[in-house]
Amino acid sequence: MEATILTIGDELLIGQVIDTNSAWLASQLNEIGITVKTRFSVGDNTDEIRDAIFYATEQSSVVITTGGLGPTSDDRTREVLCTLFESELVENEEVLSHIADFFMQRNLPLTDVNKRQALVPDRAKVLFNRLGTAPGMYFEDAATHIFVLPGVPFEMKEIFSREVVPILKNFTGSGKLIHENIVVSGIGESFLSDLIKPWEQNLPEDVSLAYLPSPGLIRLRLSAFTHSEKAGRGKLKLLFDALRPSIKDYYVSDRDEKLSETLLRELLVAHKTVCTAESCTGGYIAHQFTSVPGSSGAYLGSVVAYSNDVKMNLLKVKEDTLNRFGAVSAETVREMAENARRLLKTDFSIAVSGIAGPDGGTDEKPVGLVYIAVASAKETTVEEFHFGGFRETNIARSGVAAMNMCIKALRKERK
Amino acid sequence: MEATILTIGDELLIGQVIDTNSAWLASQLNEIGITVKTRFSVGDNTDEIRDAIFYATEQSSVVITTGGLGPTSDDRTREVLCTLFESELVENEEVLSHIADFFMQRNLPLTDVNKRQALVPDRAKVLFNRLGTAPGMYFEDAATHIFVLPGVPFEMKEIFSREVVPILKNFTGSGKLIHENIVVSGIGESFLSDLIKPWEQNLPEDVSLAYLPSPGLIRLRLSAFTHSEKAGRGKLKLLFDALRPSIKDYYVSDRDEKLSETLLRELLVAHKTVCTAESCTGGYIAHQFTSVPGSSGAYLGSVVAYSNDVKMNLLKVKEDTLNRFGAVSAETVREMAENARRLLKTDFSIAVSGIAGPDGGTDEKPVGLVYIAVASAKETTVEEFHFGGFRETNIARSGVAAMNMCIKALRKERK
Repeated sequence: MEATILTIGDELLIGQVIDTNSAWLASQLNEIGITVKTRFSVGDNTDEIRDAIFYATEQSSVVITTGGLGPTSDDRTREVLCTLFESELVENEEVLSHIADFFMQRNLPLTDVNKRQALVPDRAKVLFNRLGTAPGMYFEDAATHIFVLPGVPFEMKEIFSREVVPILKNFTGSGKLIHENIVVSGIGESFLSDLIKPWEQNLPEDVSLAYLPSPGLIRLRLSAFTHSEKAGRGKLKLLFDALRPSIKDYYVSDRDEKLSETLLRELLVAHKTVCTAESCTGGYIAHQFTSVPGSSGAYLGSVVAYSNDVKMNLLKVKEDTLNRFGAVSAETVREMAENARRLLKTDFSIAVSGIAGPDGGTDEKPVGLVYIAVASAKETTVEEFHFGGFRETNIARSGVAAMNMCIKALRKERK
Repeated sequence: MEATILTIGDELLIGQVIDTNSAWLASQLNEIGITVKTRFSVGDNTDEIRDAIFYATEQSSVVITTGGLGPTSDDRTREVLCTLFESELVENEEVLSHIADFFMQRNLPLTDVNKRQALVPDRAKVLFNRLGTAPGMYFEDAATHIFVLPGVPFEMKEIFSREVVPILKNFTGSGKLIHENIVVSGIGESFLSDLIKPWEQNLPEDVSLAYLPSPGLIRLRLSAFTHSEKAGRGKLKLLFDALRPSIKDYYVSDRDEKLSETLLRELLVAHKTVCTAESCTGGYIAHQFTSVPGSSGAYLGSVVAYSNDVKMNLLKVKEDTLNRFGAVSAETVREMAENARRLLKTDFSIAVSGIAGPDGGTDEKPVGLVYIAVASAKETTVEEFHFGGFRETNIARSGVAAMNMCIKALRKERK
């Protein structure tokens, strides 16, 4: 079964917004064994939306559109669907009552413009939008299935998962694409590729391998389409088991999760807590931790000490240390980590100080130089990193390296 | 003049890679007055690439493709172009010598696979790739202009700017698309739409308006194609001036920038500093500030007090306040803000405490309830917000609301 993804909105054609909905939908469709044949985007223009939906239905039997369902006059998708499916807009009572509730709960008046969102083409099945006011719609026409979803990512994702997936599964049957993962760190993609080539060349034909790199990490993913999830997973795990000895120095985890989730999970199991003291990462690591629901069980807080005064006043870093070695030094991060652990009363602490750039680098301490310390009651480890020239990636890679160091320290103490 | 963007590569259809090339190309084309009609993506499949290029040439007179030009067998774009343009591959000497240099400089052997990249269809004009080995190509066919570029973003961008733009400008002339922006906050899209309808309906035909919402903010953008940038901008600014009185309660800025950039810029101009004390936002606001290069001139640091202990130990919030009113209360954020300002010695401070979810809500204090305080030497302002059910958006909207409150406080004191 093949699908076409059509994203609708002027903002996608002027380069203002990067289309993340398409990538998310593609990965979800793959999960249930549906191949994406084409993805495309058109503006909020009636003729173009009509042509595009028509072209999409010629390409594949499943068409998923996002966007163009808002209440304002520049959102045209519904109007086009009425023409294409010779439908009329009718007020859907359930949707109207949901919209009324939605505005009442927010203490906002319900305007005529908002009420318009309850108008749904009569040939459509409503895909209820729990998180917003624009309902999704499903049109079935001969062997073609058209799903029309709002463009707001979290609304779109919720409707797709709850309403669209069950409908599509009726056609794809019980088969599904399964994945197993191994996350490694501390090795570049081309070196990893050389290292695992003998293993990769012996993978069975029906198993595919993907390298999924992100700053500081590479996720290796094995995928196979299977009708027995248990047997399929067993097979992929055995294949990864054969790989483990050769990558053991780089191994981080075998879950498809963020590094912050790995660390938090292992801290919770061990009943240990952690805090951070951040200079160049400026709250990024704290944000990575606290983005995970339930993180408060192990993560207690951070001192973001962006200025030297804050390093001294709040983190009690000695003025002498800052003067002699500088804010970006092994000595300073060591004090930051040890003091933060003591002040925030945690089992572990992570401290980062570096030169994120673009300015502030010198010959001796160039942009991209980062020191990271991890402290526990037993010991403090300090490492020096050289990440390179980009502020954004320096911050991201510092976060990955810091969490990775803490995972290693925790595992070492639990051995 | 209209363009179609076609991005080629299997990775775009399995959700592994987000297509950023399209958005970049769209914005660049807009700048020189070319409207993007459609964007689409197909996999590395000969038939589909051919169909797609054919469809693209029917859509518009300019077609830009990226990807599928690598040296390996899964890259098919060149082969398709030979068929479409009845061309044969011929070795281009200049490209071959560049490729040989490229490998020599990197101390890498030049393989036959790499040499293949010097083969170019004889009907194509070569668009030289200074940063990589896959050359771009330009085909002119009747009134259709097809530009074929590599998929690696920095190579594609360099070739586009240096080679493609000058060719396209021959057709578009000196005109360009200009934009002016107004950012508003504290009003929903549908209410804003009602509020500005009279103004919107009177906009000239050659000016277009876009609503660009993000959590907690809406950017209104006016665009026009002009041959005199100065006159064009003057016209758009006059139009926005007519709008200002009706949106003055929601006005944030008239720049196309993040809220953190607006606040930091205004703080730097006023020689004022700011710090944060974050509970539910967990470092997100600190990260928003410190993502901006040069932020250290005004942003000094944060205490991320995720646990009550840290609120008491580090931020000196009174135990009595936490016991009587709870961590999520107007009283607690007030103390957090005032104490952080004193401890971090800044002119302004921002404190946030709330229930981000998904757990931790009660009937009295539901998920989405957030208190924000902004303190200065003159006064402390506290506001209560109800953001709703999603952790990610609660955190993002808290950040927007907090920065907005601080912008207002700063502007009030500077009046």
